[in-house]
Formats: sequence, C-alpha cells, structure tokens
Amino acid sequence: MYGREVETALKSKNISVGDFIRAKWRGSIFEGLLMPRPDVGDENMVVLKMKNGYNIGLKTLDLDLVEKQKTTEKPLKIESNPALPPISVIATGGTISSKVDYKTGGVHMLMSAEEILSTAPEIRKFVKIKSIVNPFTIASEDINYREWVKLAEITAKQVNEAEGAVILHGTDTMHYTSSALSFMLPHLSKPVVLVGAQRSQDRPSRDGVLNLTCASIFSVSNHAGVSIVMHGTSNDDYCLAIPGTKVRKMHTSRRDAFRPINAKPRAVIFPDGKIEFKDEVKKRSEDEVKADTSFNPKVGLVKVHPSSDPEIIDFFISKNYKGLIIEGTGLGHVPTQTIRKEDSWIEWIKKASKEMVVGITSQCVYGRTHPSVYSNLRLLRKTGAIHCEDMLTETALIKLSFLLGHDYERKEVEKKLVENLAGEINKRITIDEFLN
Amino acid sequence: MYGREVETALKSKNISVGDFIRAKWRGSIFEGLLMPRPDVGDENMVVLKMKNGYNIGLKTLDLDLVEKQKTTEKPLKIESNPALPPISVIATGGTISSKVDYKTGGVHMLMSAEEILSTAPEIRKFVKIKSIVNPFTIASEDINYREWVKLAEITAKQVNEAEGAVILHGTDTMHYTSSALSFMLPHLSKPVVLVGAQRSQDRPSRDGVLNLTCASIFSVSNHAGVSIVMHGTSNDDYCLAIPGTKVRKMHTSRRDAFRPINAKPRAVIFPDGKIEFKDEVKKRSEDEVKADTSFNPKVGLVKVHPSSDPEIIDFFISKNYKGLIIEGTGLGHVPTQTIRKEDSWIEWIKKASKEMVVGITSQCVYGRTHPSVYSNLRLLRKTGAIHCEDMLTETALIKLSFLLGHDYERKEVEKKLVENLAGEINKRITIDEFLN
Repeated sequence: MYGREVETALKSKNISVGDFIRAKWRGSIFEGLLMPRPDVGDENMVVLKMKNGYNIGLKTLDLDLVEKQKTTEKPLKIESNPALPPISVIATGGTISSKVDYKTGGVHMLMSAEEILSTAPEIRKFVKIKSIVNPFTIASEDINYREWVKLAEITAKQVNEAEGAVILHGTDTMHYTSSALSFMLPHLSKPVVLVGAQRSQDRPSRDGVLNLTCASIFSVSNHAGVSIVMHGTSNDDYCLAIPGTKVRKMHTSRRDAFRPINAKPRAVIFPDGKIEFKDEVKKRSEDEVKADTSFNPKVGLVKVHPSSDPEIIDFFISKNYKGLIIEGTGLGHVPTQTIRKEDSWIEWIKKASKEMVVGITSQCVYGRTHPSVYSNLRLLRKTGAIHCEDMLTETALIKLSFLLGHDYERKEVEKKLVENLAGEINKRITIDEFLN
Repeated sequence: MYGREVETALKSKNISVGDFIRAKWRGSIFEGLLMPRPDVGDENMVVLKMKNGYNIGLKTLDLDLVEKQKTTEKPLKIESNPALPPISVIATGGTISSKVDYKTGGVHMLMSAEEILSTAPEIRKFVKIKSIVNPFTIASEDINYREWVKLAEITAKQVNEAEGAVILHGTDTMHYTSSALSFMLPHLSKPVVLVGAQRSQDRPSRDGVLNLTCASIFSVSNHAGVSIVMHGTSNDDYCLAIPGTKVRKMHTSRRDAFRPINAKPRAVIFPDGKIEFKDEVKKRSEDEVKADTSFNPKVGLVKVHPSSDPEIIDFFISKNYKGLIIEGTGLGHVPTQTIRKEDSWIEWIKKASKEMVVGITSQCVYGRTHPSVYSNLRLLRKTGAIHCEDMLTETALIKLSFLLGHDYERKEVEKKLVENLAGEINKRITIDEFLN
C-alpha cells in the first residue's frame, strides 16, 4: 500500500497496481506500469515500470489511467503446419518462462509452455510442435542431479518420437545441465537444444524470442548432439549453438553470456532459418536414443587460492566422497609450500587419492592443464591426481560423477576421465577459441 | 641415459645432453637441443627440443654435433643513462626468471634479476635501474599472504626512492598479488607494475622481453596505481596495463592470458615507448607511500554447483573463520531447494552469517551480481550475505581479508566491502568490457 495521499488519488482514477498509467511530474510526462510500493522509502513516491524496463519513482499525485491491467491472456492455440518436422518441447523453468510479479516487483515463474511458445510465433514457420512436456518447474540454481536423471530419461523418450528436442531451462546452471545430458545421452542420434533467456519476457531487451526461434530451427537440422543455443552478440542478429560440454555462462546479465570455451561454436543460426555450421558435426540418424543415467553425486569441488587451507579435503574424505575436482591455478597448480609438511596441498591430495579419484582443472577457464611443465606440477602428478586436459571445471565435475556412477574399476574411471567421450576434450584448440 | 646404441653414437661424436645437434631421419634433417631421455618410452628414441619450442622424438643414430652447450653466460653489466627516470625492480620468481633445466626437461627458476634484465636490453632506453631487490624467490602458486605483506612493505620503500617499481612475478597468482597490493598500498602515488612471462625465456614464443620492456615504460609514466602489464594480443605488438583489482589470468598458456574484467585496460603500451591511456588515471605525485598490511587470512572460498553440499560451511565455522566468499551462479545465486530444510545453502549461510561476514560473487566471472532481481536472491539477501557488486571472486576474497585485518566494527566491514576502495567496483560497466 502506498501512503494515504497516493492511495486516494489512485482510487479517484480507478487505478490499481499493474495498470498502465500516465504521470505528470515537473512538466514532464512519464508512462509505465504502476508498481507496488517498495518495502523501503517514501510511501508517497509512485513507482512506474517504464517501457525501457527500468523503474522510476515520482513524487506526484497527477496520475491518469491509460489502460487497465489486462487479465491474464489466454495462450494462443498453437497450430503448426503438419508438413513441418516435429519437435518436442520440454519446459523446466527459468527466466524464459518468467513474468514480472507486479505484487513484489520481482520475477516469478508463471508461464505455461504454451504461453512461452505463443511469445515466439515465428517458430511455427520452421517446426511443428508435436508435444510439450513439463517434467518439473524449477529455477536453474536449484537444479540437482535428480532433475538431470529425470530430464535425460524424458529427453531420450521425446527425441525418439520427434526430429529433435528443445529444452527450456534457466540460465544459471544451463551449462551444467547441458554437460550432464551430453554424458547421459551417450549415443544421441538427434539434436537436443537447451535454450533460456537472460532477460524476462516483459523487458524491451528480452532475448527469449530470438533464442527460442533459433533453438527450434537448430533442433530439426541435420546433426546429432546436445547444444546450448543463445544470443551470439548483444544484438538480436543471430544465435550460437555451442557444444554442451564446451560452454559456460560467462556474464551475469548479458544476452550473449554463453560462450564456447576451448571449442568452436557448433553453428551460427539466423532467425530466417539459415544455419552456418562452424565445426564438424555428427549427422542425425534414426538410431534409438537411450539414457544412461547412472550418476554418483559424491564428487566435491575445491577452488584453491593463496593461503587456502588444504584440510578442506578432509571434509570430502570424512563424508565418503568418491571423487574430487580441484580447480587449480594456471596450468593446474596447487600451493606446494607450507611451513609444516602435513599442512600442504600435496600431502592432502595424496591422502584424498587413496580414497577417491582426484581431477585437476584450471581456474583460468580457458586453455589446457599440463601435468609436467614445471617441477611443482610433477610433484602434483605423483600424488595420483589427474590433470583433466582442457576440460571445464564444471564439465569435469559432472563427467567424474557420471563415470563414478558406473561399475568401472578405478583404473578405468581414471582412463576415461581424460578420454574424449562427449566432445569435452579438444586435442587441438585453435587460436580463435579464446574470448570468442 | 639413452639406450646403449644411442649412448655409443653420442659418445663417438662427443655429444652430451643440452648440446645443439643435427639429426638425419628418413632423408630429413632436424636440428635442436638434445634432451634427456624421457621417463617412459623407447630408450633409443632421441629427443630434440626444436627452435619452435616443441620436442620431437627420432629413432636414428645419424647424429652430428652443431654446437656444444654453452656454459652459463655471465649476465651483462647493466649500465643505464643516468638522465633517465629511476625505477626499482623487485624480483620474486616465476617463469620470467626461469630457464629450462636440461637435466629434467622441466622448467626451473634459475636467473638472477640481473640476468633477467640483460634479456631485455631495450629497457635501458627508457629507464635507469636504480635498485634490484629480491625479497623472496617463489613459484607464484606458492605465494601466501605473508609474501604479500613483505612485498607491500618493500614496494612502498622502493617506490618512495624511485619513479616507479616493476615487480617480476609468476603468472599463476599474479592477479591475486596485484589485488593484495592494490589494497595494501592505499595512497599509492606512483606506478607499481607487476609483470611476468607465460613462456620461458629459451622458447621462440618467449613473451618476457616485450612484457618487461612495456612494464618499464609504464612504470615511469604519469599515473599512480597498481597494474599488471602483459601481452595485449598473441603477437608481439603491444602490452596492456590492467588495473590490479580488475584483472584475471584467463588462459593457462596464451601470452595474452591476462584480461581486464568489468573494466577498461588502463593503457596500451608499445615497445617504442608510446603509451595510449584508455581510462582515467590518478596522476603521480611525490606523496610518501606507506603500506597498510593488516590482513586476516581466515577468509574461505566456496564455489557452489548443482548438488553441492552446503555443510562445507561448517568447516569454516569450526575453524573460526572470520569471512567467507561464496562464488554463486548467475547474478549470485545459491541452490535454495533441498529435501530437508536444514540441508539448504540458505540455512547454512544464515548460520555462517552469525559468525562471519559472507560475501557473494559470481562464477560467471564477468558482470555484476544483484541481490534482488529474483525471489530466490531476496531469500539469500535475508541471510545477511552481501552481494559483492561486480567484484571478481579473487578480489573480493582479498578485500575481505584486508578489511577483516583491521579494527573495524562488523557493520563497517560490510559497508566497505561494497564501497570502491581501489578500483575494484565499477559502477558503470560498458559494452566493450566483455571478453576484451
């Protein structure tokens, strides 16, 4: 509730929170949606959400109704051309399915899959939506390996009955999920495309429509594999499809936040339907897709830093973890010098190696780790820890969990950890695969 | 030792490991330094380090000596023009002071500061080296806050007696050190430039010479502040000077690995002495520099991920930590949903907040965190945790340690954590400050 003066003015004009209104202030006119009163601040400051997406606070009672808040629109009935290739849409939540909640001013997940699709009518030029499934609705920061298991099983089933699958997903952990699906769908014969939005649908800078259009186009193209499709630039010109194990969210808010790491983008996709493949792809086939969802979540992650305490490793030993990824510095280093030998990372990693598989990645994000360039690295190699080539930390974590979910001998897990199973290791990083 | 056949052939030609030799194999001629036999592999495979820096293994006995291994060259005596501005060089170790050890094929720290400088004679056109100090010699992965204290004190002293200081440093943690010095030298009135090398001096792709030349040039320019100066591109054309709190090693091996994050480079520096400033800088002055080295290393770092166990926080509580940085996903999220409430990150962060200051950064690397866009974020804000604006995780970790080293009230620490003290918070990130 606003203060008494404002509430009176609103009432006299039949204005409610959520209505589109016009306010005059110091000779200027402002238009926007009336937001609820913020928790803090002047109770007579009227807050409008303007067309540019930003809120403005105005101390004025000169208010006029422009348009009443529309009742929730019925989703358009999605009719597609039956001659177009069929896809399955799997909705899991995230900003791509969110709307601003006018009660709190925050963003909430609200839209049904049908509603989301109705925001991007363009896709009906390229694909026929055969089915829409909604295995769970979750903010992506809350995704857990149990969701991955469910999602892999549903995706396998859906993709067997269509030309491809488009998965709507929150962006925070989308690259963890794309990595998990890459391993859990080992003989994938069709396109599986994860897509999200960095900005909610009600903002002028919304990105979901282009992303969804490009994802749909890519999901029926002639390739097989798990990709993330998101904005290629901060304009609305094209999207990139990036291999599911070589991708990372590299910006908190930009629309082109998802970038390929140590890899080329799989393809550039334009909203008119054009696809430019940028790397070799496996061609699609009709082979049946089966999910392999064995997964052991008892794999820890530690990022080392100067003065970091290696005893943290004891937490994972005592909790009976089966794997540990250490995000080292540079080529995959840990601190080696300590006043007392028993305090050293080297000694603690030796201890850990007796109980679990230890993988080393680099906090540089880009580039390859290397176990033997420097004498300190050879010290680390002798602990039994395994440098994970050019794998992303996030991918290494998921791959090790996947391998440890299986009935392999330890030697086999260690061997497979540095073998390329799902595009996660690139033997030849090229010069343009940095900050692309 | 190689196998008997190879050793016999080497002996007959008076060739030893480390000599520059010529080998014929299948009609081709290969030249390079004879390397020791690797630990594994064919004992009669002769290994040469070629001029391009790579090793080749050849199964041949057709070997000829080109040049005996030179005895360690005496460093050139460094004579500078007394009219040039004086700098102090502070050598701490790292690849910039390393040479390949022909005994092991690995890289060892060998060179004295004088030797290093003699590799870059160009610098004598721009500066006069007033003093060379060597407070410690350490691989940068082994740097600890105790070294930072020592280094800050020495740097303050040295810079008061010169126009600027150049610090030779290993690259792995150079950005942690530049951040530590940025806080520990709060009223810095002169340039302090950290410089390193990604490739050792004996490699054709060596980068130390250009880096050292540009660092020297920048260290006597009209500005004040801590910067890292390293290759701007993978060519030898220019270097970037990047603010000490807004820089990160973003590639394990590339020469242009150090990039500005959420900031502009401070300047572009050309080896002919030209400097193009790219952002506003504080001008130099003769104000005395004093180090403020109070520092509390009891600050932990946790990177969250799907299925991560929040009980790890108990490790830091039980060890009486005073601060914790949580590297969240996206805008600064942690998982909020768990089967049992007491297992949730939110509950554990609440517990931690009672004992210590908790800061939230983003594993996206680029962009700003935001405490209130989504309802889950507001949940996190209510725990008492503080979103650290656009600060790098590494910088936030060091800043919180620095603040907690001082006699501030907790409220004061929390307030200063999100105030810009040393360029670590950029209120206006521009569009070109991504993947630059």
